Amino acid sequence: MSTHENPIGPGEVWLVGAGPGDPDLLTRKAEKLIRAASIVFYDALVGPGVLDLIPAGTKRISVGKRSGRHSKDQDSINDLLVRAALAGERVVRLKGGDPSIFGRSAEEMASCADHGVAVRICPGVTAASAAAASAGASLTLRGLARKLTFVTAHARAGEALELDWAALADPAATIAIYMGKAAAREMSARLIAHGLAGDTPVLLAANASLPDEQLLRTRLDLLPVAAAVIADDAAVIMLVGAAVAGSGASTTRQAAARADAEA
Amino acid sequence: MSTHENPIGPGEVWLVGAGPGDPDLLTRKAEKLIRAASIVFYDALVGPGVLDLIPAGTKRISVGKRSGRHSKDQDSINDLLVRAALAGERVVRLKGGDPSIFGRSAEEMASCADHGVAVRICPGVTAASAAAASAGASLTLRGLARKLTFVTAHARAGEALELDWAALADPAATIAIYMGKAAAREMSARLIAHGLAGDTPVLLAANASLPDEQLLRTRLDLLPVAAAVIADDAAVIMLVGAAVAGSGASTTRQAAARADAEA
Repeated sequence: MSTHENPIGPGEVWLVGAGPGDPDLLTRKAEKLIRAASIVFYDALVGPGVLDLIPAGTKRISVGKRSGRHSKDQDSINDLLVRAALAGERVVRLKGGDPSIFGRSAEEMASCADHGVAVRICPGVTAASAAAASAGASLTLRGLARKLTFVTAHARAGEALELDWAALADPAATIAIYMGKAAAREMSARLIAHGLAGDTPVLLAANASLPDEQLLRTRLDLLPVAAAVIADDAAVIMLVGAAVAGSGASTTRQAAARADAEA
Repeated sequence: MSTHENPIGPGEVWLVGAGPGDPDLLTRKAEKLIRAASIVFYDALVGPGVLDLIPAGTKRISVGKRSGRHSKDQDSINDLLVRAALAGERVVRLKGGDPSIFGRSAEEMASCADHGVAVRICPGVTAASAAAASAGASLTLRGLARKLTFVTAHARAGEALELDWAALADPAATIAIYMGKAAAREMSARLIAHGLAGDTPVLLAANASLPDEQLLRTRLDLLPVAAAVIADDAAVIMLVGAAVAGSGASTTRQAAARADAEA
């Protein structure tokens, strides 16, 4: 993107990953797009420091709630984006994390496509990567966690989660659970019932990368208790699996040696 | 990070995600760390535009190959990082994508821990997010793909992949396969044998986000053919599942409507 040319054409929409919250974890491209927009729509999950990068003259509109957002709200957001684009605005839609991971970007793209509005995506750092980085842990581990699964556990009160528990309960994998605080008890019970050990390491992260970040190490059987003490209103991610135990040097080396021996 | 203070202390190591290749997809934090380092170790997967950001006076050392890297090489890298830190350097270890996803960061952290070297992680944009963004696709889709699984399919010639195929072959999920070009035939055959439809959408991306990016849309039964025509030396990511079919507006809306009806 040349500095002489606006990277967003009038009537174009960019879905931009705002990353986990720390404005320094925004990409250079996202920063350029934010500075080039004439209007910015943003989620509650977008960090305040990121919003500070929006130039003073740019229109900014808050959309969406942290959780419990209904489809009606999503329809309104789709409409707002399309209407702004059709009015000739240079539109940035800021989304917490990466737009392609539990970001409903497909719905916004479909709506733009319906109205002939050009839409593009700028990827971002997802919350699981930020939580692992803050904790000094890896999400994968050679010989110990060769698979990483992202799920969303955003169920309504009283409803069971529709997840393939047997497939999830793999001791050689890491599970990253987005929006799962309310479902912590069910996740813990089901994963244990399907074979994961009660002492499987768990890392809970709230507001990862932000000044009020909370990191809590626990084990799968104690996850419901730990989730209950994490700040109520926070964006929480739960990482489950041997890899996230952190800088367990001897475990890491043993696993790597085993992987080498098998290879 | 204040501009008056170096964010890397002497003798400290930062494992830094370099993102998918485009220097604009580097985080602002990664850029600051690169500019603050006295020595930078980097992978073959780190984009040339990213390396251009290393100041002229900074030592730069290429480590690792694109694939087939042996553990001996990893041990050498671990040693190099530790030795540089113990010599008082401000060390940045640049890794393609995100350090926590198939980046062997746990092994480098363990090695640093062994020698009392402080080590921290700066997360990055992973290749799957970049490939989806380039293709205008989402990795998850409400009502259609509620799960996203990252696997690495880096097997040696003649060896079978050790993956739980039954768990992977979930039609309501997206699979992101890293380093899997050589295993494309086996992946395709096994996933179909375990129940995925032959016409499951596949997106192949080579060098996502770079000027020589290649994007190829195909279907699971044709994946081996498609993988064979992707540039030989390229970093390839394979995305499998209904979500990656792209801006299929009617599919997206139908899936969202179904999710709403179920909720």
